[in-house]
Amino acid sequence: MKTLITNGTVVTSTGRSRADVLIDGDTIAAVLAPGSSLLGFDVAGNVDVVIDAAGKYVIPGGVDAHTHMELPFGGTAASDTFETGTRAAAWGGTTTIIDFAVQTYGQRVLDGLASWHQKAAGNCAIDYAFHQIIGDVNDDSLAAMRTLPDEGISSFKLFMAYPGVFMSDDAQILRAMQVSADTGMMTMMHAENGPVIDVLAQQLIDKGNTSPFYHGVARAWQMEEEATHRAIMLSHLTGAPLYVVHVSAKQAVQQLAWARDNGQNVFGETCPQYLYLSLEEQLGAPGFEGAKWVCSTPLRSREEGHQHAMWQSLRTNDIQMVSTDHCPFCMKDQKELGLGDFRKIPNGIGSVEHRMDLLYQGVVDGQISLERWVEITATTPARMFGLYGKKGVIQPGADADIVIYDPNGHTSIGLEKTHHMNMDHSAWEGFEIDGHVDTVLSRGKVIVDDNQYLGAKGDGRFVKRSLSQYLI
Amino acid sequence: MKTLITNGTVVTSTGRSRADVLIDGDTIAAVLAPGSSLLGFDVAGNVDVVIDAAGKYVIPGGVDAHTHMELPFGGTAASDTFETGTRAAAWGGTTTIIDFAVQTYGQRVLDGLASWHQKAAGNCAIDYAFHQIIGDVNDDSLAAMRTLPDEGISSFKLFMAYPGVFMSDDAQILRAMQVSADTGMMTMMHAENGPVIDVLAQQLIDKGNTSPFYHGVARAWQMEEEATHRAIMLSHLTGAPLYVVHVSAKQAVQQLAWARDNGQNVFGETCPQYLYLSLEEQLGAPGFEGAKWVCSTPLRSREEGHQHAMWQSLRTNDIQMVSTDHCPFCMKDQKELGLGDFRKIPNGIGSVEHRMDLLYQGVVDGQISLERWVEITATTPARMFGLYGKKGVIQPGADADIVIYDPNGHTSIGLEKTHHMNMDHSAWEGFEIDGHVDTVLSRGKVIVDDNQYLGAKGDGRFVKRSLSQYLI
Amino acid sequence: MKTLITNGTVVTSTGRSRADVLIDGDTIAAVLAPGSSLLGFDVAGNVDVVIDAAGKYVIPGGVDAHTHMELPFGGTAASDTFETGTRAAAWGGTTTIIDFAVQTYGQRVLDGLASWHQKAAGNCAIDYAFHQIIGDVNDDSLAAMRTLPDEGISSFKLFMAYPGVFMSDDAQILRAMQVSADTGMMTMMHAENGPVIDVLAQQLIDKGNTSPFYHGVARAWQMEEEATHRAIMLSHLTGAPLYVVHVSAKQAVQQLAWARDNGQNVFGETCPQYLYLSLEEQLGAPGFEGAKWVCSTPLRSREEGHQHAMWQSLRTNDIQMVSTDHCPFCMKDQKELGLGDFRKIPNGIGSVEHRMDLLYQGVVDGQISLERWVEITATTPARMFGLYGKKGVIQPGADADIVIYDPNGHTSIGLEKTHHMNMDHSAWEGFEIDGHVDTVLSRGKVIVDDNQYLGAKGDGRFVKRSLSQYLI
Amino acid sequence: MKTLITNGTVVTSTGRSRADVLIDGDTIAAVLAPGSSLLGFDVAGNVDVVIDAAGKYVIPGGVDAHTHMELPFGGTAASDTFETGTRAAAWGGTTTIIDFAVQTYGQRVLDGLASWHQKAAGNCAIDYAFHQIIGDVNDDSLAAMRTLPDEGISSFKLFMAYPGVFMSDDAQILRAMQVSADTGMMTMMHAENGPVIDVLAQQLIDKGNTSPFYHGVARAWQMEEEATHRAIMLSHLTGAPLYVVHVSAKQAVQQLAWARDNGQNVFGETCPQYLYLSLEEQLGAPGFEGAKWVCSTPLRSREEGHQHAMWQSLRTNDIQMVSTDHCPFCMKDQKELGLGDFRKIPNGIGSVEHRMDLLYQGVVDGQISLERWVEITATTPARMFGLYGKKGVIQPGADADIVIYDPNGHTSIGLEKTHHMNMDHSAWEGFEIDGHVDTVLSRGKVIVDDNQYLGAKGDGRFVKRSLSQYLI
Repeated sequence: MKTLITNGTVVTSTGRSRADVLIDGDTIAAVLAPGSSLLGFDVAGNVDVVIDAAGKYVIPGGVDAHTHMELPFGGTAASDTFETGTRAAAWGGTTTIIDFAVQTYGQRVLDGLASWHQKAAGNCAIDYAFHQIIGDVNDDSLAAMRTLPDEGISSFKLFMAYPGVFMSDDAQILRAMQVSADTGMMTMMHAENGPVIDVLAQQLIDKGNTSPFYHGVARAWQMEEEATHRAIMLSHLTGAPLYVVHVSAKQAVQQLAWARDNGQNVFGETCPQYLYLSLEEQLGAPGFEGAKWVCSTPLRSREEGHQHAMWQSLRTNDIQMVSTDHCPFCMKDQKELGLGDFRKIPNGIGSVEHRMDLLYQGVVDGQISLERWVEITATTPARMFGLYGKKGVIQPGADADIVIYDPNGHTSIGLEKTHHMNMDHSAWEGFEIDGHVDTVLSRGKVIVDDNQYLGAKGDGRFVKRSLSQYLI
Repeated sequence: MKTLITNGTVVTSTGRSRADVLIDGDTIAAVLAPGSSLLGFDVAGNVDVVIDAAGKYVIPGGVDAHTHMELPFGGTAASDTFETGTRAAAWGGTTTIIDFAVQTYGQRVLDGLASWHQKAAGNCAIDYAFHQIIGDVNDDSLAAMRTLPDEGISSFKLFMAYPGVFMSDDAQILRAMQVSADTGMMTMMHAENGPVIDVLAQQLIDKGNTSPFYHGVARAWQMEEEATHRAIMLSHLTGAPLYVVHVSAKQAVQQLAWARDNGQNVFGETCPQYLYLSLEEQLGAPGFEGAKWVCSTPLRSREEGHQHAMWQSLRTNDIQMVSTDHCPFCMKDQKELGLGDFRKIPNGIGSVEHRMDLLYQGVVDGQISLERWVEITATTPARMFGLYGKKGVIQPGADADIVIYDPNGHTSIGLEKTHHMNMDHSAWEGFEIDGHVDTVLSRGKVIVDDNQYLGAKGDGRFVKRSLSQYLI
Repeated sequence: MKTLITNGTVVTSTGRSRADVLIDGDTIAAVLAPGSSLLGFDVAGNVDVVIDAAGKYVIPGGVDAHTHMELPFGGTAASDTFETGTRAAAWGGTTTIIDFAVQTYGQRVLDGLASWHQKAAGNCAIDYAFHQIIGDVNDDSLAAMRTLPDEGISSFKLFMAYPGVFMSDDAQILRAMQVSADTGMMTMMHAENGPVIDVLAQQLIDKGNTSPFYHGVARAWQMEEEATHRAIMLSHLTGAPLYVVHVSAKQAVQQLAWARDNGQNVFGETCPQYLYLSLEEQLGAPGFEGAKWVCSTPLRSREEGHQHAMWQSLRTNDIQMVSTDHCPFCMKDQKELGLGDFRKIPNGIGSVEHRMDLLYQGVVDGQISLERWVEITATTPARMFGLYGKKGVIQPGADADIVIYDPNGHTSIGLEKTHHMNMDHSAWEGFEIDGHVDTVLSRGKVIVDDNQYLGAKGDGRFVKRSLSQYLI
Repeated sequence: MKTLITNGTVVTSTGRSRADVLIDGDTIAAVLAPGSSLLGFDVAGNVDVVIDAAGKYVIPGGVDAHTHMELPFGGTAASDTFETGTRAAAWGGTTTIIDFAVQTYGQRVLDGLASWHQKAAGNCAIDYAFHQIIGDVNDDSLAAMRTLPDEGISSFKLFMAYPGVFMSDDAQILRAMQVSADTGMMTMMHAENGPVIDVLAQQLIDKGNTSPFYHGVARAWQMEEEATHRAIMLSHLTGAPLYVVHVSAKQAVQQLAWARDNGQNVFGETCPQYLYLSLEEQLGAPGFEGAKWVCSTPLRSREEGHQHAMWQSLRTNDIQMVSTDHCPFCMKDQKELGLGDFRKIPNGIGSVEHRMDLLYQGVVDGQISLERWVEITATTPARMFGLYGKKGVIQPGADADIVIYDPNGHTSIGLEKTHHMNMDHSAWEGFEIDGHVDTVLSRGKVIVDDNQYLGAKGDGRFVKRSLSQYLI
């Protein structure tokens, strides 16, 4: 199958230019000066399909480096399967996800990985890779971690929150980070001081403050800032590269900036919810509605300026990329578990479908440049997590994961409109986007076009990842 | 003329990949998966020349954004003409320079620009552009500055040093920066507190401290840091984008990092001399030899750690790019003017030929990544100064300014060895580089190959620049 | 004359305690455990006067280190003479002022000093000392400055604002600071970038923005922050101790804190107006009323939080003391000079009478502790400017400058109520203070008591000052 | 008993002056202008003893706020009893210690306190007070803590190190700090990340690195900095005042400075060992000798500049006071427990006798002023821990704890010379001090004079403390 995308504007992380893109099979064969021919050779005439991208942006498919399909959590499980979640991702212009395989407490690491392979294999609409959650750092798991790069797993995640479930204590983090420093694997960190937060939450509940709003109160920014600093110092001590997930507090960003200015290999991701949504407006919605937006780290106060700071951090590169932390739960039977006790509300927001659109709106609003949009949604995620050359870039040899985005299109987000995630509500209901994902190609195959899904379950394959490109 | 560069590894600012590059006339026609053919079409067989880059890096030609050919200074003039200087640049893998047209005190801006066009036109080996030095900010020059973008001049430079010659006082800087904020032109700044430095220099001379070493003592880092901060605050006040030239003090970098973390559009360049050379070793050489390395800002103390900090700042992106500030003077008749009074030594070092090599050595030494090398020597300079799409990148439509760099080659720098600048000494004598510029193409024409210069005077053309790509 | 103050609570900068204070002649003879006797000796019975201070604070008389009596400015002169101004100070519990002798441009330093001695001698209600303003740094004045310590003048002030009047350029500041570093004299600095402010002011006037509010707009905080940083770096370069006067911008405080944390001998004063008044409320008052509060540095925006930051800086000791910058002008014939052009409004606010009260209100409001009140109004000013042992402290041998302050009293500030400064309005009209200056002693003589002035013109003497106590 | 100290120079934290001090019984009755008489009354003739302090400093007796007499630790106990330790303190001019009562794990708080009262009562040479170590934060101990202020215990100490022994986890710290915020009690913190340090120590031992030097390696500065930041953020979250004990890393000081500049009530103490001794010189001494200087936090690297930074922090007030953390162990049978495993070396250095001398040497060396010496050794400790008015100050009503210090005397520190601590070695062997403690009075009684101990076991009494004076 040979495809030529003509007349479009190819946008990379460093610039934009008029160019045609030739796809041969799974990969990009060439990027050509526009005109559909080469040295007199009629390129357009020798392909199976010509796609006209006039007036549109041709960008690398999105790489969402933080999703949780089918994740068991709090007695239930994330409502998107790998099938439904990756299909929704495809609708939204994301062509690769990096999900998290989980080693639970007492389990062997490779058994955890194997079970995630089983969940995903044959079910995905787009390519997928795995980080490994280490829920039990011990001699056995430390040894197993050293074998993960051979499995194509070049990063693992630890938690400073959720004591008794996922949390590693500082001694465990130290030992895991020593493996990270030795092997070059990236240490990913959920940076919140869980033990303190749990006491604060209990105290709020004891006082009758049970509504979703208090989820945000309990998870105070001080405890995100603190954990971020602690992770940074453990990284300094061991030499492990560090990637802090779902940063939401401006003070946490200041810690990251400080570490980076000092030359540490420290990185941070934020998520669309921390750019647009707030403690006051969403978590503080009347009644139990705020439960829709219960996630951790929590939405932060707009009055304190966190959202503004997050956008700025994307411009200054103090935050390097945007993932979704996609972890959807329905209100019915799931979020409702926390009626009367915010601690029992499953933590998570479903956004995998909307990341590319929501960030593009940041371009329209003047928050980031068009090039930065491509960088933070595709190129940097691929570089950060060892997918460079395959994903996140439009260049010969790369997988033909391409999105044709129409800056003159429009997208209305809402459950009744354009919603393909397996949820009974949308966390983004009512958001209007001044752009539209017209066409999505995954390894050369058109899987979304003209508001139709043309792909199939199992189109997506597991992708092995190498080490981060940012290790110097 | 059609050329195919095959079998090489194309290196961009974001990654590297095996790819062929097809050149048609002045520009790049395509970047292709390796193999010299496309959809069965024999590309190699349909070009005039095939260059084999097996085992080598194919990179965008260097963009040196800070040179001073033929600059009158201190009663003499920089010893490289546009002819000799640009030819030396070509030898070293630099295919574009941005030189500085000068408005002297009392002169009209466009007259200054015209005279620089006259010096350069028909003489250059490679393409060239101009920044405009504003030596006399007044109502007339402020009005003229607003017309410069139409001339392809999208940046101007002011001096906080050299009172009575180039210096603008703070009121003048304010007014010029207001034009910068209005038009989007980049304000470039020589950030040293000249009036203070001049007093310190006079006091040193009065005490008999006349040798080149005291040039470095007089130009204390405090006065670079101070001027940098002052420029940053004037930028904050006006909203002008700011680019600080030849940053050499680690404390100045801290100011830049602070401003950038706060979201200001503030940038900085350093030069090879601040990465490798020092106050103690070079400026402090016996007798008058230190005069070779008299430049401003001066070489800084290695004991204080400035060089180390400069390399780090390149990794952290607190400094965004490396130019040469090429401004060569011979010892005889030129540097010797300052025998007995370091103030009379013409300020400048000749490096335009060696920038790509010296920075590549940073890759070998583990200071920066290969991709970062391309970024700081070519891609960012082009983006910073409005050359993106033409220069600094290998993509269809871009000018075919390409360097084939051999990581297995070797370059010995020295006057008797490989030196094409018009100087009677080399500031880099004895430096050994673990790499070699094999082939240089300027707009599709091979101008250097196999240690031979194949170009001609006048190959290079003036390039109009648009605004910086970094204005959000 | 022997006086015993009994039953009061003596408050020092480090604590409070019940103690009697015995005065013999001009000085304090003893501080005694309460009870009016010593080893059986009836102290109370052997003095001329016993003052009962039961329920009241006994504190060192205030030291106002920044006043401008009779200062010629903008074609007029500050409306308080040494006679009226020092009497008003006495009313308010201030028993020492340090005024500024002025060397104007072209004048000899000691001539300037002499003329100020002439203005003050025989006219003052309380003791006074002088700083020396250096309005013309040149070889002659630099030599003269070295003789000032012998005259009892251990500090001089430079201006970075008011070009053409008082301003020293950076080269002049450098040379003056070298004298400061050599001699230990304190360099005081008006830190605002005058040349830039003057352009901004002209541009505002050109646009018709002539009202007092625009005085605050023109004197942007960025230019206070900038000048503060510049002064700090010149201090770093030379080793001169630096004292920044009338700090009003929170960003300037951050610069001071940074320098102090780095170990520099850098200090800062703020004034009551920067703690209580704002750009929006006072300078922005309707019509021309804002002229009452035109002073430089200007009142800052409350929305930006400067006032809050100033109080905090007094708690953190990032600002060390509070002076008034007393420089009163009447509305009629004086402030009115600037009707139609804010630049012509004489700069200054009259506060010398109210400083002790206004700061005491900070104690009542919980902004500072009682001990800190004494420290920032009396003890630190005396230590900072070489009056320690004589002023600012209650200890044997010190001048008996003592205030008996009633925390249960009340003071209503207002022109018709309690106003003794020579002004036709009060900048503090309507301020209510939960405390009262009951009794004021100057060198053992009661000069204010029970709302009566008992002193006489000429009570006050010139006091020679030694070097700052903070030079390590 | 009435005593007059005449002819001396009384030094306070704010200045020095010639004054006589009259003592009547336990307390100071008056501070008088020199001359031994008052209003004609012959003071000297009416006292029992006149002490001539001509040429000497009369200062408040030292307050050492951090000692551990008889502390059980690592299977042995600190070798000084309250009897021997307080006598040695008296020899060195310290007249009050604040020791630490210990609640061990599982014990009731008040039982712990009672047992410390038992150890001390009737045995001390000087007055003493207690902080309370909380080794087991739980509902019961939290309730008990609220009763401590009534017992005269206004501060408690938690440990972030020594897991399984003293360590509180973050949830416990939070709850204890909430009590601190509610009551105004000071939270004292041993800020080192114990769990991480224990892993590092085990890894060093596993590699055969068993000597005392590796104690310093294991206790990396990063883990002091980290814990300091964590404590600061928990203080920020709860509003608890925080006092970090034995700060030794310059990076920890930076954290304290940052918190204080932000307006937090955060304080820090350092100890003489961190000012003078180093990892390289002392801990790295040949063989097992380094064991003498095994303490936690450990001695830091001189090459990294920690000692220099500590002196600076005393000047800048980023560190507010100096205690000893006196915790002596003999080499024989005690330190030797750690032959072959540095983890088993009892942690502690004996310094209670030398603090005043060692810090006075800092005055001689130009590190601090004479006034600052008094402030950091006596006045601030008393203010910090609620002893103001009784201790740390020379003023009527205060306890007559006074030291007459001879700046022309000399003190040679060494086991064979002047050593009264119960140790078989001196950590300060060979230190020479350019000053001498001539006379020490404790509550009016001369207990040391002319190199003779004149006091008696049981002279010292327990002192109840009120809240810190620094709570605004």
